[in-house]
Amino acid sequence: MNDLVDLRSDTLTAPTDSMRAAMASAEVGDDVYGEDPTVRRLEERVAELFGHEDALFCPTGSLANVLAVGLVVAPGEELICESSAHVARAELGAHAVLGGVTTRTWTHPRGLVDVDAVRGLYAPDMGPFFVRTAAIAVENTHNFAGGTVQPLESLQGLRAFADEVGTKIHMDGARIWNAHVATGTPLSTYGAVADVMAVCLSKGLGAPIGSLVVGDADAMAAARVRRKRLGAGMRQVGILAAAGLHALDHHVERLADDHAHAQLLADAMGVDPAGVETNIVVAQVPDAAAVVAQAKSQGVLVSAVGPRTVRAVTHLGVDRAGAETAARVLGGLLPA
Amino acid sequence: MNDLVDLRSDTLTAPTDSMRAAMASAEVGDDVYGEDPTVRRLEERVAELFGHEDALFCPTGSLANVLAVGLVVAPGEELICESSAHVARAELGAHAVLGGVTTRTWTHPRGLVDVDAVRGLYAPDMGPFFVRTAAIAVENTHNFAGGTVQPLESLQGLRAFADEVGTKIHMDGARIWNAHVATGTPLSTYGAVADVMAVCLSKGLGAPIGSLVVGDADAMAAARVRRKRLGAGMRQVGILAAAGLHALDHHVERLADDHAHAQLLADAMGVDPAGVETNIVVAQVPDAAAVVAQAKSQGVLVSAVGPRTVRAVTHLGVDRAGAETAARVLGGLLPA
Amino acid sequence: MNDLVDLRSDTLTAPTDSMRAAMASAEVGDDVYGEDPTVRRLEERVAELFGHEDALFCPTGSLANVLAVGLVVAPGEELICESSAHVARAELGAHAVLGGVTTRTWTHPRGLVDVDAVRGLYAPDMGPFFVRTAAIAVENTHNFAGGTVQPLESLQGLRAFADEVGTKIHMDGARIWNAHVATGTPLSTYGAVADVMAVCLSKGLGAPIGSLVVGDADAMAAARVRRKRLGAGMRQVGILAAAGLHALDHHVERLADDHAHAQLLADAMGVDPAGVETNIVVAQVPDAAAVVAQAKSQGVLVSAVGPRTVRAVTHLGVDRAGAETAARVLGGLLPA
Amino acid sequence: MNDLVDLRSDTLTAPTDSMRAAMASAEVGDDVYGEDPTVRRLEERVAELFGHEDALFCPTGSLANVLAVGLVVAPGEELICESSAHVARAELGAHAVLGGVTTRTWTHPRGLVDVDAVRGLYAPDMGPFFVRTAAIAVENTHNFAGGTVQPLESLQGLRAFADEVGTKIHMDGARIWNAHVATGTPLSTYGAVADVMAVCLSKGLGAPIGSLVVGDADAMAAARVRRKRLGAGMRQVGILAAAGLHALDHHVERLADDHAHAQLLADAMGVDPAGVETNIVVAQVPDAAAVVAQAKSQGVLVSAVGPRTVRAVTHLGVDRAGAETAARVLGGLLPA
Repeated sequence: MNDLVDLRSDTLTAPTDSMRAAMASAEVGDDVYGEDPTVRRLEERVAELFGHEDALFCPTGSLANVLAVGLVVAPGEELICESSAHVARAELGAHAVLGGVTTRTWTHPRGLVDVDAVRGLYAPDMGPFFVRTAAIAVENTHNFAGGTVQPLESLQGLRAFADEVGTKIHMDGARIWNAHVATGTPLSTYGAVADVMAVCLSKGLGAPIGSLVVGDADAMAAARVRRKRLGAGMRQVGILAAAGLHALDHHVERLADDHAHAQLLADAMGVDPAGVETNIVVAQVPDAAAVVAQAKSQGVLVSAVGPRTVRAVTHLGVDRAGAETAARVLGGLLPA
Repeated sequence: MNDLVDLRSDTLTAPTDSMRAAMASAEVGDDVYGEDPTVRRLEERVAELFGHEDALFCPTGSLANVLAVGLVVAPGEELICESSAHVARAELGAHAVLGGVTTRTWTHPRGLVDVDAVRGLYAPDMGPFFVRTAAIAVENTHNFAGGTVQPLESLQGLRAFADEVGTKIHMDGARIWNAHVATGTPLSTYGAVADVMAVCLSKGLGAPIGSLVVGDADAMAAARVRRKRLGAGMRQVGILAAAGLHALDHHVERLADDHAHAQLLADAMGVDPAGVETNIVVAQVPDAAAVVAQAKSQGVLVSAVGPRTVRAVTHLGVDRAGAETAARVLGGLLPA
Repeated sequence: MNDLVDLRSDTLTAPTDSMRAAMASAEVGDDVYGEDPTVRRLEERVAELFGHEDALFCPTGSLANVLAVGLVVAPGEELICESSAHVARAELGAHAVLGGVTTRTWTHPRGLVDVDAVRGLYAPDMGPFFVRTAAIAVENTHNFAGGTVQPLESLQGLRAFADEVGTKIHMDGARIWNAHVATGTPLSTYGAVADVMAVCLSKGLGAPIGSLVVGDADAMAAARVRRKRLGAGMRQVGILAAAGLHALDHHVERLADDHAHAQLLADAMGVDPAGVETNIVVAQVPDAAAVVAQAKSQGVLVSAVGPRTVRAVTHLGVDRAGAETAARVLGGLLPA
Repeated sequence: MNDLVDLRSDTLTAPTDSMRAAMASAEVGDDVYGEDPTVRRLEERVAELFGHEDALFCPTGSLANVLAVGLVVAPGEELICESSAHVARAELGAHAVLGGVTTRTWTHPRGLVDVDAVRGLYAPDMGPFFVRTAAIAVENTHNFAGGTVQPLESLQGLRAFADEVGTKIHMDGARIWNAHVATGTPLSTYGAVADVMAVCLSKGLGAPIGSLVVGDADAMAAARVRRKRLGAGMRQVGILAAAGLHALDHHVERLADDHAHAQLLADAMGVDPAGVETNIVVAQVPDAAAVVAQAKSQGVLVSAVGPRTVRAVTHLGVDRAGAETAARVLGGLLPA
């Protein structure tokens, strides 16, 4: 895949040489016994970044979402989310299958929080006949809506609503780092909005494997047990945690480059650059499959995420030259 | 409760004397062994009414919905429904807990089908990463929206959409009899819209216990096994089925009386009668709990279904005189 | 089926005329709202019989077992039982599917409690890696072992063991009435052994439908919610409860007749009568299917419960003459 | 932990320097997209070793067991296993919680297959009332029984029985490498006994993370989807797979050293060496907690796996000198 510019997803990032070196020299222990010092260091650091008590390492973002939602929504209860949220649309329906979670949804063209819509959907506890709303999920940045950033005032409005009615907020922060870099909002400010979070190391941050649940200490202890039951209690996790620590040191600020590259692509692809807030460019085309195939023949990989929707995602593995190549190729395929 | 006019729900109907006589003389057998002739007669008759191959008796409408949805939505798949649908809002989240069903929702102020909204939400099978839409649920009449009737053209539009994309339709017809009587639409016309249905004998029809799943013969055979696993494989069910057969003979056409009584109430309660299509009247009031208490002190029982929402439901157990009494009491409590 | 003597199961009993009359005149209300006086009367009476605080009506014995076990075994925990227990062998695996219950088993040729075996299997809480034993189930009488009665001293030994280690006991008392009549042990003495129980009205007692969970008041409140989620919150249940009350008045002591009839059958079938303690006769034959077919051709219905195992069950629907006919027919087919 | 001899478990092994180097230089891709060449190489190699079509990488042995069992036992069906099997005793009850699997058990003092006991428990499909036996699980070597090896003739007898009745076999081969090295039985001979297997890289083989499901190609495709739903679809898995490949090259034959060290410990601990077949020594003591504490104070870590049961496990991280130290310490604490 050497010469390809691969814009299908930021999950595709391979570890850099220095990240590999960090992994190779990681101090490790058996994390099922709570004895891996590197994973503990990562968990404490991530918790602190978001201003929460503790965090828990997970092999995937899907699992981090399942564990986080499970902390705030019991079987038979409800999670409200936007209709194209990853927790509803992807993850193979795990929240219902594993957690018995009912979902009801509002729809926003850019995947954004709509407090009025949430208020309209919200169901208080009306006795043992009805499903009560236990939590609201918000995805920041919102993947399928094109990497959009949830406006801070909306998030804080949602927090105020949640406090008013006594419900919880889960933030799916798989790409929270992109929101942070794009807006300058401190991670702890985002953290203050949420009761529980899921954040990911293996997308823009470039670690090979790893996400974390974030929340209070009791919640993390409960999530640890459920993680084990779900078959994700791994052993010498420090190898992977070392990559995460390296990413936090070296790969957060550089997300600005990915965002700049996305602007370059947007411009070439005829997409309004103002609508491209982070590292994801979504373009409407007459025939997505055809664009994917033609771009591939010219060495640029993008995804069809709908019959007429093409998506390009910038990341650590695509440098300026790659972005320029991709802009040229895609620009030639899409009417500007 | 002799002197009360009880409008809390049409589930409150007690069997009439002639229905009790029918039950007392029912021929029975062990239905787990498939040997109860009366339940078989009821199942065959209901299937025929809706133009489907077979039907299956269930102890509750909730179970009938769970079995019907389970026939068209596998664990990890998705059911789209209106956001105040009974399958999403009530039933204690059974579809997620027992069936692993993801739900996404559109919102309509009268609970009605919106084919454009469904088209916007609909998710085709895009490989084993995403949740695919396996079915769409429609509730007719729609309970929490106030007994509204789904317009036939909308239902047929939904059927056309479902056929176009290859998805299924579940009709929650707990009060399909009310829709039939209110509009004159044949039951089989409603049946033709749906792949599976749930219909209820213990609401407007006045049987003490019983609902049925409706669908094709293979589906009913599968539902029978799942019914047993869910602990609902009852024995001499003919006793209950006899009440259902009696209700089909005697209590369908009389629903028109309930609808007339509801008009009378709507008029007194200051609710636009055009919006009251069947037997449910929903009124907005400043303080629902207060209205419920004051009405009760005057011998009329209604429900608070929201902090500022009062509901009155007419049924077999409320005659003309009772409806007039209730209209007088409620009219005095609500500004016309 | 007029002339047949049907010994396939005691679930086959049809309601008597006087039971039907009791049902037809039952006072009813909506039990989902807790307003059915007849079902409350039955629940209180059954609770009192077994010396527990409360009871809860269920449409089937399977559901009563699921609810009872769910009260003492959380998902991920363990229930120990005999390997041919109904909760493990029948009920379509509901305890695992609906309750996430792990089962481990001991084996006894007559299905009896073996405290040493239980002690060997018992797993204390050893931290969040292992499955802890949350409860032990005991079936009395034991259906698949041939209606055997659990000796009282074994039950009390099990209770002592449970108290010693801090675990719970569920008694599957679908046929506890037979054990009571066969031994004279008071129902409350059996009740004192168990934390939760399931007892059935529709087997030997002859009610068409109905079982009850028995336990303390908080447990019954929790079971009521779960019963609703499982789709078994029925409405005018008093119709069925009236049959149960009638059965408690009239059909308990007469189980002695069923036991006498079973002795008669055992004698004819070459089975040691000492091993037939209640109303179930299990005989080993060279070809069970052949015996079933030959008996049927002579008007006697029995079951094959294994390739070489035939079962005959006496009940309310088989009188002395029927039992004598069956004994003659079966005696001619089985070598005495 | 430098000076300690840690015999608590063989899961504690840390990667060697050369294993770390292999990981650091691994070629990787996104395994969710099926593009990681190293994990594919590992999966193909492991499949070939056991003579099966394909294999699938998992983050833990628990998950590999859950996926493997899920391939042969549907919700509501039954898995028969020995009563101290890891699938029943450990894994936090995941098979019931996630897979709806009923378990029934036989008991063997050394955890061994007992074909007669299996035959006694085995339940054929008797229609939709009963739980049918879908598979039998066998653990080789058997962890909680002390690393015992399942005799090949017993395994082959079980295979013959399974073929006779038409059921499946799952082999929990977390330590199948130890059985192979201890007996010389080829891995493919063990593989031929099983329909599906789970094998582990992170116990005796010393990889930090990783297990594999083994089976036919269709089964692995199905397991891949369920792995994703369970939140275990990791990204650049080649990092971990490289450790597994290294372990297969370098850490299989050396298990003989662990077995020799275990003999040394057994001898010192007063345990019959003939009963110690691989790398696990289990000793009965008057007070397990006391022995654990006293050994720890002298620099040797062992586990209490019961109130009067101490366990010591040899592995890659304990060399001859360490084993001798441990033998001396433990020998002083346990009466020989």
